[in-house]
Amino acid sequence: MERQRHQGMAKNTSMRWRLPLVCLLWELAMIVLFGVFVRFSPEADAHWEEEKRELNLTSDIENDFYFRYPSFQDVHVMIFVGFGFLMTFLKRYGFGAVGFNFLLAAFGIQWALLMQGWFHSFKNGKILIGVENLINADFCVGSVCIAFGAILGKTSPIQLLILTLFQVTLFSVNEYILLNLLHVKDAGGSMTIHTFGAYFGLTVTRILYRPNLEQSKDKQASVYHSDLFAMIGTLYLWMYWPSFNSAISDHGDAQHRAAINTYCSLAACVLSTMAFSSMLQKKGKLDMVHIQNATLAGGVAVGTSAEMMLTPYGSLIVGFLSGIVSTVGYVYLTPFLESRLHIQDTCGIHNLHAMPGLIGGIVGAITAAAATEDVYGKEGFIKAFDFTGVYQARTPSVQGGFQAAGIMVSLLMAFVGGALVGAILKLPVWGDAAAENCFEDDVYWEV
Amino acid sequence: MERQRHQGMAKNTSMRWRLPLVCLLWELAMIVLFGVFVRFSPEADAHWEEEKRELNLTSDIENDFYFRYPSFQDVHVMIFVGFGFLMTFLKRYGFGAVGFNFLLAAFGIQWALLMQGWFHSFKNGKILIGVENLINADFCVGSVCIAFGAILGKTSPIQLLILTLFQVTLFSVNEYILLNLLHVKDAGGSMTIHTFGAYFGLTVTRILYRPNLEQSKDKQASVYHSDLFAMIGTLYLWMYWPSFNSAISDHGDAQHRAAINTYCSLAACVLSTMAFSSMLQKKGKLDMVHIQNATLAGGVAVGTSAEMMLTPYGSLIVGFLSGIVSTVGYVYLTPFLESRLHIQDTCGIHNLHAMPGLIGGIVGAITAAAATEDVYGKEGFIKAFDFTGVYQARTPSVQGGFQAAGIMVSLLMAFVGGALVGAILKLPVWGDAAAENCFEDDVYWEV
Amino acid sequence: MERQRHQGMAKNTSMRWRLPLVCLLWELAMIVLFGVFVRFSPEADAHWEEEKRELNLTSDIENDFYFRYPSFQDVHVMIFVGFGFLMTFLKRYGFGAVGFNFLLAAFGIQWALLMQGWFHSFKNGKILIGVENLINADFCVGSVCIAFGAILGKTSPIQLLILTLFQVTLFSVNEYILLNLLHVKDAGGSMTIHTFGAYFGLTVTRILYRPNLEQSKDKQASVYHSDLFAMIGTLYLWMYWPSFNSAISDHGDAQHRAAINTYCSLAACVLSTMAFSSMLQKKGKLDMVHIQNATLAGGVAVGTSAEMMLTPYGSLIVGFLSGIVSTVGYVYLTPFLESRLHIQDTCGIHNLHAMPGLIGGIVGAITAAAATEDVYGKEGFIKAFDFTGVYQARTPSVQGGFQAAGIMVSLLMAFVGGALVGAILKLPVWGDAAAENCFEDDVYWEV
Repeated sequence: MERQRHQGMAKNTSMRWRLPLVCLLWELAMIVLFGVFVRFSPEADAHWEEEKRELNLTSDIENDFYFRYPSFQDVHVMIFVGFGFLMTFLKRYGFGAVGFNFLLAAFGIQWALLMQGWFHSFKNGKILIGVENLINADFCVGSVCIAFGAILGKTSPIQLLILTLFQVTLFSVNEYILLNLLHVKDAGGSMTIHTFGAYFGLTVTRILYRPNLEQSKDKQASVYHSDLFAMIGTLYLWMYWPSFNSAISDHGDAQHRAAINTYCSLAACVLSTMAFSSMLQKKGKLDMVHIQNATLAGGVAVGTSAEMMLTPYGSLIVGFLSGIVSTVGYVYLTPFLESRLHIQDTCGIHNLHAMPGLIGGIVGAITAAAATEDVYGKEGFIKAFDFTGVYQARTPSVQGGFQAAGIMVSLLMAFVGGALVGAILKLPVWGDAAAENCFEDDVYWEV
Repeated sequence: MERQRHQGMAKNTSMRWRLPLVCLLWELAMIVLFGVFVRFSPEADAHWEEEKRELNLTSDIENDFYFRYPSFQDVHVMIFVGFGFLMTFLKRYGFGAVGFNFLLAAFGIQWALLMQGWFHSFKNGKILIGVENLINADFCVGSVCIAFGAILGKTSPIQLLILTLFQVTLFSVNEYILLNLLHVKDAGGSMTIHTFGAYFGLTVTRILYRPNLEQSKDKQASVYHSDLFAMIGTLYLWMYWPSFNSAISDHGDAQHRAAINTYCSLAACVLSTMAFSSMLQKKGKLDMVHIQNATLAGGVAVGTSAEMMLTPYGSLIVGFLSGIVSTVGYVYLTPFLESRLHIQDTCGIHNLHAMPGLIGGIVGAITAAAATEDVYGKEGFIKAFDFTGVYQARTPSVQGGFQAAGIMVSLLMAFVGGALVGAILKLPVWGDAAAENCFEDDVYWEV
Repeated sequence: MERQRHQGMAKNTSMRWRLPLVCLLWELAMIVLFGVFVRFSPEADAHWEEEKRELNLTSDIENDFYFRYPSFQDVHVMIFVGFGFLMTFLKRYGFGAVGFNFLLAAFGIQWALLMQGWFHSFKNGKILIGVENLINADFCVGSVCIAFGAILGKTSPIQLLILTLFQVTLFSVNEYILLNLLHVKDAGGSMTIHTFGAYFGLTVTRILYRPNLEQSKDKQASVYHSDLFAMIGTLYLWMYWPSFNSAISDHGDAQHRAAINTYCSLAACVLSTMAFSSMLQKKGKLDMVHIQNATLAGGVAVGTSAEMMLTPYGSLIVGFLSGIVSTVGYVYLTPFLESRLHIQDTCGIHNLHAMPGLIGGIVGAITAAAATEDVYGKEGFIKAFDFTGVYQARTPSVQGGFQAAGIMVSLLMAFVGGALVGAILKLPVWGDAAAENCFEDDVYWEV
């Protein structure tokens, strides 16, 4: 009791000067950096009429905007409503779930536009942005939302902003290594978003281990209505995942195929999740935690391979298995990770993103290695894997090897980066709450 | 008292082995059948580059994906969030509403891809799927979601899966008869989805009549927050209905027109619903049941004719009348059906889908019969009704007759099919709850 | 006490005959007017095949439907779910917020199709409507939803319908003056929608001043769950605002650019809102009122200029400043307006729409005045500002002047129109509730 009070007393969770300072200074930095670096891509620039003539385009409909904007909006909903509401399941942390997710994502997309822009859209000293950059920025922030899931309810908004700053940076470096140096395919981000984001977040929460977290155990639970709010998040993630996995694929068949594969995988995943949720409970009742989360594993697990010729039945298999792995993870692995490895994973991102992300990377490597000109067609084969230029001679099996290497690099970046960022977040100056006040909106919100 | 307890005791609602078994075996069956039959359509296949050359397409934007994907996503939202949340109005059945709808729809779309595929997309022994198949699968499942509305809160998840298996099958047969044999137009599914789905569900619930349902009358009610959750469902159905009715119409003007007609019909429907909701209550207060449901009748009632030259004012008239019919139905017909005909219709699908569906079929028949080359243009006339090939000589009035026949066939299929499936679901082995435990999540969910 | 009771007694809030009468008669009027005037635009008409030939279009994808329909649906969601749920923050007025917004918007879009149609789409005695008309009708109604925010909880549904009738009319006149007579650009409606709508609503609520409103002070507050429902509205407005500001921009680069500018502005706005929300509260806690509202100011404030070459960093600046202005407004200005100027602004639309709308108009004027052929390209310059025909010789600085005039006209229309409409609504025959029954669903809804 004495110790509890002492701890509670010692913590200064007031954000009054710290949070405004960080928000305002960082936003001013964004303005300066955008002023120096960011301009419109030719397709969003008023010179587009000239561009159209140069490219011999006969219609405005050829603007990339019309190929990708609907998918972009779906992805946008996934990041802000999907992740935001998925995390409202806690009975007294709805404001923090939706609100902090809102804050970190709004900052993160700006920083991601810069970081990814320097790596991928840098021309003559300027970053030229179009709708594809907006999607990629949302993707990058998705990995931060995932990591947020592990530390949900235990960190201050300043910690989340610092996490975002570093994670977006590391994400962009990792993405550059994978996509540009290893020439890996990962349209839906099984490796870059999910594997990296989840293991990064798990490492951070391990470093931030709170031995007395059972003091707020009563608050780390849902109530009837908070579970329904969370289902809004679940369903929007589930429904729009075909857009997520197809948003940045090549125009035409690749986008089309990625949407179909993801649709199939997710459908199968719901059935295996329901089956195991019922089977693993003594009375055979379904558990909302599984329905809210494990049903989404199928989207994660086809992230890399959705744009490939995975085929609908291949997608069903992947979704089916990932639903099982994820549900079993919630029942057996999460308690184990917490009690033995001291990994306190509030939302169970290990089950929803880490393991399915690994599956996704592996499935992607296998699907790439198994590719043949027969299945893809001569042109389709080259187009699907960008086997042009210096990569002209790369074979499917070599590509599969590089894909596997991409998993390893993502894991390495996640562990090393997560450890470093975790150490920074452990400094006692960021205003995080005492153990007995975790999972409680009252700490940072007027309630 | 003794009888109640006896009944409660006798019922074994545990899903522990039954639900997992059904989910896993059926999903494995899907995987096998997809493996044997389902492949990508040319527009989603990596051979698309060759296809493009053959079809003389100069741009990837000609891929059907870009014509239909935004509508597909809207339809997807209607099925999972729209129907799911619309049914959360019950105070203690929110998990079941959203969760079981999720389960049955996820299974149903897979089975629908197969069933509809065999009838409509079967080439050289393979079902070739693209975005239009995904939309049609969602449509098919929509009819199951409708039927689910009649039996909401009274069936086990296994019963719902069995219902889905049979209803999807019968839906596909009925759809084949209408679209292929009768050559009927029904883009928004007034007949195939709403009339069939609703009368099927009503027949099932009649067969499953529960004489003691008043024992759970206190649970068959809403609370303030559950009514707001339901409004999420209502609004998404209402807003996206223009996408629903236009999703599979011909490219160009037909999709455009279907969206406009639906928009108009739904707008008018809101006003007549509000008027009658207030008028039919002694103190003139509005009833959320009407606002949640009858406002949608306008979308149902222009389902068949939306892609025709119904005209905006025609749409207003249809929406206006269907709002009245639906609201009056909730006030007078639902109690009558329950007390006299023993049809216990939890969500009032008779008012939202059955009657407006019939109106939709009739309006479609009349609109088709009234079509002239003057109104449609020579080419437009042929294109709108596919008066080509063996149907080259069909006249509008003959088409109107076939449309009317389509209503009859749908009703017949619904009654016969519903009776058969109802009889199967009545077997005492599916784990449905006792009358006093209906409308209660606690039976199948960890709460 | 005696006075309270007296007042409560005196008020007859029954809608039983009044509301049905208004709804039915007005809807019948709509049907007649649509019958006389409204037809499909060539792109939605069955004669489209001939139209295509005349315009030398080679593909159905050139139909305006494919350029604008995805944006239309996003705007539709903003009007019905966005505004509807944003206003559910009150603990006992969720039905009224969502339901009355539904009613007024459903009527308003019909009337707007007519009013805007007569001004902008009138050909040979007919109003020809296509998807752009649907978007504009939604936009027009958006201004009514804004005004509704000021009087939320204090008016009867009949008053709201009367408000809608007049405001849509005045909106259309004002829009005609701005777009056609002044040749002003305002794609996202900073002036036409936000400035006009907000000052109109504020004038109305001033006229309807209720001196005893503190009698229902306990109901004019949120509870935990109602704040989460409101966040659904906030997020959908925030996420889809890029669609709002780009929905009716020119095809191609203008739509693309408008979406990017809005995305950037909104992101910056979240950070400055969070900063000031925390800073202005003694304990540094965040206030949900600010997060729900001020985070959206960035979308309002780039409404006019989003389709111009505002540039991403310009957008960040605008969003950053408008978040500050809006949050500061909630803390200091709203109480001042209420106590000193007797403006009772339930949702604080002065902070979310009025001030940011003015900023938007001014930023638009400056951006237009600063336009150069160098930045826009020769063709882009002419296209961006429609400097053709009689406007061929207009210079950017003159355009800037006209833009500024547009703000003034919008303000004038709002004040004069609002005063007139307010006076009409003050008549004691519309069934509004007594002061002690404000913000209470029980008055007009079966609860």
